[in-house]
Amino acid sequence: MILIKLGGSIITDKTQYRTFNRGAVRRLCKEIKDSGIDAVIVHGGGSFGHVLAKEHSLQNGYTEPSQIPAAAKVQYDMRELNLMVISELLDAGMPAVSVPPGSCFMMDDGKLILDDPEVLLSASRLGLTPVVFGDVVFDRRKGFGICSGDQIMEVLCRIYDPEKAVFVSDVDGLFDKDPKKNPGSKLLPEVTWDLLKTVSSDISVDDVTGGVGAKMESMLRMTSSKRDCVLVNGSVEGRLYSLLKGDKVISTTAKGGSK
Amino acid sequence: MILIKLGGSIITDKTQYRTFNRGAVRRLCKEIKDSGIDAVIVHGGGSFGHVLAKEHSLQNGYTEPSQIPAAAKVQYDMRELNLMVISELLDAGMPAVSVPPGSCFMMDDGKLILDDPEVLLSASRLGLTPVVFGDVVFDRRKGFGICSGDQIMEVLCRIYDPEKAVFVSDVDGLFDKDPKKNPGSKLLPEVTWDLLKTVSSDISVDDVTGGVGAKMESMLRMTSSKRDCVLVNGSVEGRLYSLLKGDKVISTTAKGGSK
Repeated sequence: MILIKLGGSIITDKTQYRTFNRGAVRRLCKEIKDSGIDAVIVHGGGSFGHVLAKEHSLQNGYTEPSQIPAAAKVQYDMRELNLMVISELLDAGMPAVSVPPGSCFMMDDGKLILDDPEVLLSASRLGLTPVVFGDVVFDRRKGFGICSGDQIMEVLCRIYDPEKAVFVSDVDGLFDKDPKKNPGSKLLPEVTWDLLKTVSSDISVDDVTGGVGAKMESMLRMTSSKRDCVLVNGSVEGRLYSLLKGDKVISTTAKGGSK
Repeated sequence: MILIKLGGSIITDKTQYRTFNRGAVRRLCKEIKDSGIDAVIVHGGGSFGHVLAKEHSLQNGYTEPSQIPAAAKVQYDMRELNLMVISELLDAGMPAVSVPPGSCFMMDDGKLILDDPEVLLSASRLGLTPVVFGDVVFDRRKGFGICSGDQIMEVLCRIYDPEKAVFVSDVDGLFDKDPKKNPGSKLLPEVTWDLLKTVSSDISVDDVTGGVGAKMESMLRMTSSKRDCVLVNGSVEGRLYSLLKGDKVISTTAKGGSK
């Protein structure tokens, strides 16, 4: 089984509130289906989640009553986005079912608690494809908070122990310098904990507020002696398909087991 | 707090696959909001759930592989319907959040297991309005099954202990004879376990496959010495509002505590 995250930057237009990239999602769903792999899918929020969540500081937890309708609206927007993704998966011939974290799980001071994976495992056992996503999630201490797609990936790695975890973004991988500022920057095909220390920390990748350092650390935490974690560009046609088929493609692979 | 079920016959056109009664739902959401009560809402599936579920015998559990895409499609259709209901609640000014049983809970041989109501209670505590609905739910013994809105109402009565449970349907209440066949049939303003024995069992109400007997038994099971359970016609403008405000309206009230 391969755990795949479709990043918010690839499935939405992050610059425009609630804009879905249907064409890209349709193609990526077909690439996943055509590869023939068993998948569990996670997706980000992009412009369906981040805009309003940021406006109302939902990531900081409950501070004032005006956040309540905003929390409901962000959950609503995320479920709309999720249904659009599910619809494309169904059309591609994958029997996808939604598992929305905000409805199913709790957080404790920002940490996602997923004590009971029975629904997820029941779905997979029947040959259904679970689809999870970044969401507003209730929090025992803070009232609520934002659970990112990356947090979900880490938890699902523990539950499913997948052979590979794949992050589909709109960049070719991790570079030694920010490629937007440095034309001569080089793609790093492989990253380890040791190598990460040498990489400039101000590079922005995908939708990561914590910068590329947090992103790669999160990816490295998902690796094991048997499992790599790959960052691949989903905006290039066929690249995800080739990766899933086991071909060597332009990408960055986090390796080396967890710290 | 009042637990309200919006029946499938009132929120959809049951004769046409996937037809939403937006006007009726919009009005009912406004009536709930205007009444000023705290609500937890359940809705049925109507033509979004029943048509395809019946076609593939999903209520009998897993018997053949062709049911798998059908189970995914029914879950998808139900989530579309749910988002339409949520959207109307948000527009009416109620911060509604979705809790889909098929994503969050399990069944065991047709019985809904809801061991952990933490998400539901967290939502209510913050002033959000949980919305639950009839769904395809994974089943420990049968693979999956159908969890009806009425089953959910019973479980939510145990969790929330509401002051009243209200079933909004498209009939005025329970009659002593089937009103469609007997013009002289009389509405029963009150039903108890004893009275139920005297009522003709072939009367059809709302979307209940088990007939009116099962419906009223389910309603009676939800009563307690402190809680009535009311069947009211939501297609008559203002009737739900009046009921929620505490006025006497045309309806059938199940009374008398559980058996």
